[in-house]
Amino acid sequence: MYCHIIRAWIDIVGMEPNSEITKEKYGVDISSIREAQVRIDPYIHKTPVFTSGSLNDMSRRKLFFKCECFQKGGAFKFRGACNAIFSLNKDQADKGVVTHSSGNHAAALALAADLRDIPAYVVIPNNAPNCKIQNVIRYSGQIIYSQPTLQSRETTTARIMQETGAFLIHPYNDVRIISGQGTIALELLEQVQEIDTIIVPISGGGLISGVALAAKSINPSIQILAAEPCGANDAALSKAAGEIVKLPETNTIADGLRASLGSLTWPVVRDLVDAVITVDDQEIVEATKLCYEVLKVVVEPSGAIGLAAVLSDTFQNNPAWKDSNRIGIVLSGGNLDLGALWDSIRGP
Amino acid sequence: MYCHIIRAWIDIVGMEPNSEITKEKYGVDISSIREAQVRIDPYIHKTPVFTSGSLNDMSRRKLFFKCECFQKGGAFKFRGACNAIFSLNKDQADKGVVTHSSGNHAAALALAADLRDIPAYVVIPNNAPNCKIQNVIRYSGQIIYSQPTLQSRETTTARIMQETGAFLIHPYNDVRIISGQGTIALELLEQVQEIDTIIVPISGGGLISGVALAAKSINPSIQILAAEPCGANDAALSKAAGEIVKLPETNTIADGLRASLGSLTWPVVRDLVDAVITVDDQEIVEATKLCYEVLKVVVEPSGAIGLAAVLSDTFQNNPAWKDSNRIGIVLSGGNLDLGALWDSIRGP
Repeated sequence: MYCHIIRAWIDIVGMEPNSEITKEKYGVDISSIREAQVRIDPYIHKTPVFTSGSLNDMSRRKLFFKCECFQKGGAFKFRGACNAIFSLNKDQADKGVVTHSSGNHAAALALAADLRDIPAYVVIPNNAPNCKIQNVIRYSGQIIYSQPTLQSRETTTARIMQETGAFLIHPYNDVRIISGQGTIALELLEQVQEIDTIIVPISGGGLISGVALAAKSINPSIQILAAEPCGANDAALSKAAGEIVKLPETNTIADGLRASLGSLTWPVVRDLVDAVITVDDQEIVEATKLCYEVLKVVVEPSGAIGLAAVLSDTFQNNPAWKDSNRIGIVLSGGNLDLGALWDSIRGP
Repeated sequence: MYCHIIRAWIDIVGMEPNSEITKEKYGVDISSIREAQVRIDPYIHKTPVFTSGSLNDMSRRKLFFKCECFQKGGAFKFRGACNAIFSLNKDQADKGVVTHSSGNHAAALALAADLRDIPAYVVIPNNAPNCKIQNVIRYSGQIIYSQPTLQSRETTTARIMQETGAFLIHPYNDVRIISGQGTIALELLEQVQEIDTIIVPISGGGLISGVALAAKSINPSIQILAAEPCGANDAALSKAAGEIVKLPETNTIADGLRASLGSLTWPVVRDLVDAVITVDDQEIVEATKLCYEVLKVVVEPSGAIGLAAVLSDTFQNNPAWKDSNRIGIVLSGGNLDLGALWDSIRGP
């Protein structure tokens, strides 16, 4: 398919040389990420870093898996949500927060709001899968159903904001969210010495922006690679085009990676992400299996894509990455419907 | 069923008061476990301890999950196997090792033998599930098929020993195995302060014997509770009878917990295990689900039984354990056939 061509485009377009990372330029700098780290420290799990001899052998590298599946709420999203909610002043916070994301961000926001004892309103399309609804309910989020169209979600969200005064917290195009996600890189670089490359799933870009801003501030030579599904390759296309490209539709098993870049995340991806590696769904499923069978970690397909990238021919055969030897891989989340597994596990 | 009655029997029989733990008495003492810790330290993963607010709320306790699913080979068995293999002198080791266990012990033994670069012969019944065979092959174990009868397994094993001079390493009735498994308790008590109770799956008793010997040597007031399936409740019956009881057949989803106690493990279970909590298969499956959905840990049903025990009415309603507040739970392993899950995860 076109996956492998993308890389050639990127080679032609070339990478921006690393430039100074300032708050003026990106809205976030290392100090905002360090502040986030202090702010969320009492609430988050410091997630472990896993290694596996088998996966090192397979990838011919030393891999360090930053296991955000074990984060509260089951995904890295809790870091950003927590930073955003605990950044609000009391008057703002008392009115609650609202989002119309129905995935991991919604559950994370509900959980963080519950910790601050403020309401979280979550606008969810009335055809959303039950497991996502249950994740929000589990953390005391208040669900408001909309029609399954973007317009309905937005008008419903606007109505909630007007009625309650709740503060809208975007899942990724928000400096507090980006700063919160960046704490992953601070932790990883404390936990493992001499990381030379970090591979991060890319969707709306909040996670990779935070990681890139933190890591490149600490060590500009660290390579930041985005991992993206072929069927939702807007970041690869955007990098190649030099501007945000939005896809009319996406087609991938990695359902958490279908968002488009935002106005805050695009400049970071443009300047600080060294390349985008696209992988197909079969590679994603194989990587997911390896996470379960070798690492024994419950990960959703979107969360395993970094492993898929490092095992891909695109990565393995490209001389650009022959010196990438100590690679951090963010396993970003572990929320998925495991019903088929339970159906298969029955007593005698 | 009869599960809840067992507890009453135990109350009547009563617990042995904690007695002096010596090598003369049990074949293993704290010094052999500390020696094992030093011996296996270069090879094993020091597994993390996980906590979960949700599971603390459900159990009304503070739970500390010692995640041996993340051990090399996917189960605690690697500790004992590693200690046994690296305890052999060179002449013994050169001839290799043999076992006729086909489960986690076989894979662990193959992996440890591979590290010492000696052969591991594994006698497996010709009807064993493919995933178990693959686990042994993955670690370069040499498979010898027997008929699926105990007699055939034993005669085949005897033949291998005669032909090769290989050293037989029993999966649990072996002081080196017990000492290796005991290192779990040393680690747990270093990682978490003021543990007052440890819940451990029981099968042949190697794991719980090691844990009990280590923990009670360090702090005799720590309660050691065994978790056992109703359908393989020989340990509960043995404790009640005051002698080893073997079941004519077992019937449980927890396929790793069907062995009977051995001559070395029974005295430890008799004297140092404070009680056996039996749970039914439904409780085991529910606990397994919680491990995946809340902890995001891949665990086999046998490995999740400790969580089932602490959530059971048997535990929750018994005043004997009202002061058990900081509870270590050994999640013993994560090797299972996940085929149904992969069948359900498909690209669009």
